[in-house]
Amino acid sequence: MTRAPTEIHSSVHLSTNPRLSYPVGSSPLHLLFRQNLLECRPPNIPMSLHAKAIFPRIFGHEASGIVESVGEGVTEFEEGDHVLTVFIGECMKCRHCTSGKSNICEVLGLERRGVMHSDQKTRFSINGKPIYHYCAVSSFSEYTVVHSGCAVKVSSLAPLEKICLLSCGVAAGLGAAWNVADISKGSTVAIFGLGTVGLSVAQGAKLRGASRIIGVDTNPEKGEKAKAFGVTEFLNPNDSDEPLQQIIKRITDGGADYSFECIGDTGMMTTALQSCCDGWGLTVTLGVPKEKPEMKAHYGLFITGRTLKGSLFGGWRPKSDLPSLVDMYTKKEIEIDEFITHNMPFEDINKAFDLMKEGRCLRCVIHMPK
Amino acid sequence: MTRAPTEIHSSVHLSTNPRLSYPVGSSPLHLLFRQNLLECRPPNIPMSLHAKAIFPRIFGHEASGIVESVGEGVTEFEEGDHVLTVFIGECMKCRHCTSGKSNICEVLGLERRGVMHSDQKTRFSINGKPIYHYCAVSSFSEYTVVHSGCAVKVSSLAPLEKICLLSCGVAAGLGAAWNVADISKGSTVAIFGLGTVGLSVAQGAKLRGASRIIGVDTNPEKGEKAKAFGVTEFLNPNDSDEPLQQIIKRITDGGADYSFECIGDTGMMTTALQSCCDGWGLTVTLGVPKEKPEMKAHYGLFITGRTLKGSLFGGWRPKSDLPSLVDMYTKKEIEIDEFITHNMPFEDINKAFDLMKEGRCLRCVIHMPK
Repeated sequence: MTRAPTEIHSSVHLSTNPRLSYPVGSSPLHLLFRQNLLECRPPNIPMSLHAKAIFPRIFGHEASGIVESVGEGVTEFEEGDHVLTVFIGECMKCRHCTSGKSNICEVLGLERRGVMHSDQKTRFSINGKPIYHYCAVSSFSEYTVVHSGCAVKVSSLAPLEKICLLSCGVAAGLGAAWNVADISKGSTVAIFGLGTVGLSVAQGAKLRGASRIIGVDTNPEKGEKAKAFGVTEFLNPNDSDEPLQQIIKRITDGGADYSFECIGDTGMMTTALQSCCDGWGLTVTLGVPKEKPEMKAHYGLFITGRTLKGSLFGGWRPKSDLPSLVDMYTKKEIEIDEFITHNMPFEDINKAFDLMKEGRCLRCVIHMPK
Repeated sequence: MTRAPTEIHSSVHLSTNPRLSYPVGSSPLHLLFRQNLLECRPPNIPMSLHAKAIFPRIFGHEASGIVESVGEGVTEFEEGDHVLTVFIGECMKCRHCTSGKSNICEVLGLERRGVMHSDQKTRFSINGKPIYHYCAVSSFSEYTVVHSGCAVKVSSLAPLEKICLLSCGVAAGLGAAWNVADISKGSTVAIFGLGTVGLSVAQGAKLRGASRIIGVDTNPEKGEKAKAFGVTEFLNPNDSDEPLQQIIKRITDGGADYSFECIGDTGMMTTALQSCCDGWGLTVTLGVPKEKPEMKAHYGLFITGRTLKGSLFGGWRPKSDLPSLVDMYTKKEIEIDEFITHNMPFEDINKAFDLMKEGRCLRCVIHMPK
């Protein structure tokens, strides 16, 4: 959603426009947003799979909030509940939700048409003209309407202005390290891209006892910051003419046990795969490319024992898993606060986008008017 | 090795040429071949990784034999031992061999220079001119010299003329199904390419209790044969204009749990990946492409939960694992005999190549003169 200035403006414009209306649907949950998070990377959504761009719409997919009211038939929530929104829901009933090995819900999977999962209609309008949803969340707005399967009830003791980061980026990184890669103690990890997602992978790797965590980023300022999250060695590709994969294979005596692509660059997915060791090297792709959606890899990389694995939202099943991640935060078992480099009111959202585009923030938490 | 007629002729020529000599090296094992197998597919060797083609050489990599004599320092074997040769050895000491999770031995890995691993020299010559090895085996010859780490002692009760198939193809397929994919009971499997390797995957899947095994091949005669190995549905891509991945996703309600590329076609690797289901779909690549070594895949295939995994020799560690596979055969727990469509003397090896090129055989066992 951060692709073009027009997208940013449309979301800002809409959320401050008093003519925006929020009709109540038959089953969805309605949320009042007291806190809201501006995602500081393009969201983990295969935009290129879109049939077409849909405008106008309300963006924002990484958020926490308080339930304002519930639609007909919703028994899981009541007014005042604290929730995290999720861009992929969990119906708890489909083949995927009951498999125990997938978070790609068949009923509430990635919503790409800008409407509610339930009736394929939008809940927003201005003067009778439809305003579309974004990934079932649309959190850049004081109020929103989400399907009850796309909200996760969490402890009301956890600070909403912090745990909103578990709605996407931080959870995605931790999940990639734990659920997808299942990093083992003493292993070597290479992380390409040290934004919030990449640094969350680093945190996950550190908590699993990885012995070496090599962080790669072209922004030299990331090096110092990354140490706090567990990165033991920082590589800036611009500092050397030697190909990245060659450097990593050299310093790790054959390649990393695990590598993670957290940039959204298919070329870097290949590099990540090449940076892994023979025999058991595992590459996890988390990034969503803005262009060149096809990744390429020499078959020899696979035949010598490498694995390439993808993940959406770190493999977490939102309703089943997020409450315990929130509990881990309240018990100080995982770090979130350090990712929040800026807090600002909703009216300054464009400043947040500028920070993001300039690479000067990790996460900016946008606070809604109370 | 089956790429060009010149390769075939060089091996036939050499093995019947009385001027060929077999000098004894310092540590290798020397084998007399009583039985020998002609591989009926290009071997699982990344030929395109070769620095250059090496000629003249003795081809053949899938074989059983009897030890004729042992080199200095070899204590593991003695004259008369029955062995399988292996194109990737197992030193039992390196980081990979001791990891318990890799068969890519650092000492005796794929030998691409046509020499012995031990001293980088060849053991064959004609009139003083070197004749090179092939993948540490060179079995198209009455005698050969292999490193002691590239031979596996097996029960002398097992028939050499059958178990030679466990030296590569049959073992590779079973291992891909068991070690690499770890197929679970009741699952759906799609296999691209129904040669010996693909049919061995089918056998492995059947023995794991897969509920549906979809076999794909352009040769219509494969359909009937494949049933004996467990294939429950046969698809010939030439029978329909509908893309293969679309057919498989349609008939499996979303895609197979596992897919296997056993052709050696990077385009088909992509199709295999596309034929897997979201969430937990796993594609295993076994084939070695003759051309276009780069595979391409849309990142969205990974982000929605698919995994692409390679394997060499089905993940088997030769010395650790092959003896028990041989035992499984003698206990009739796995099938080998059905793969042997032809038996012929060494002097008819070119007829075997013709059968292979025409797709009229699975495996032809070449018997050496006694």
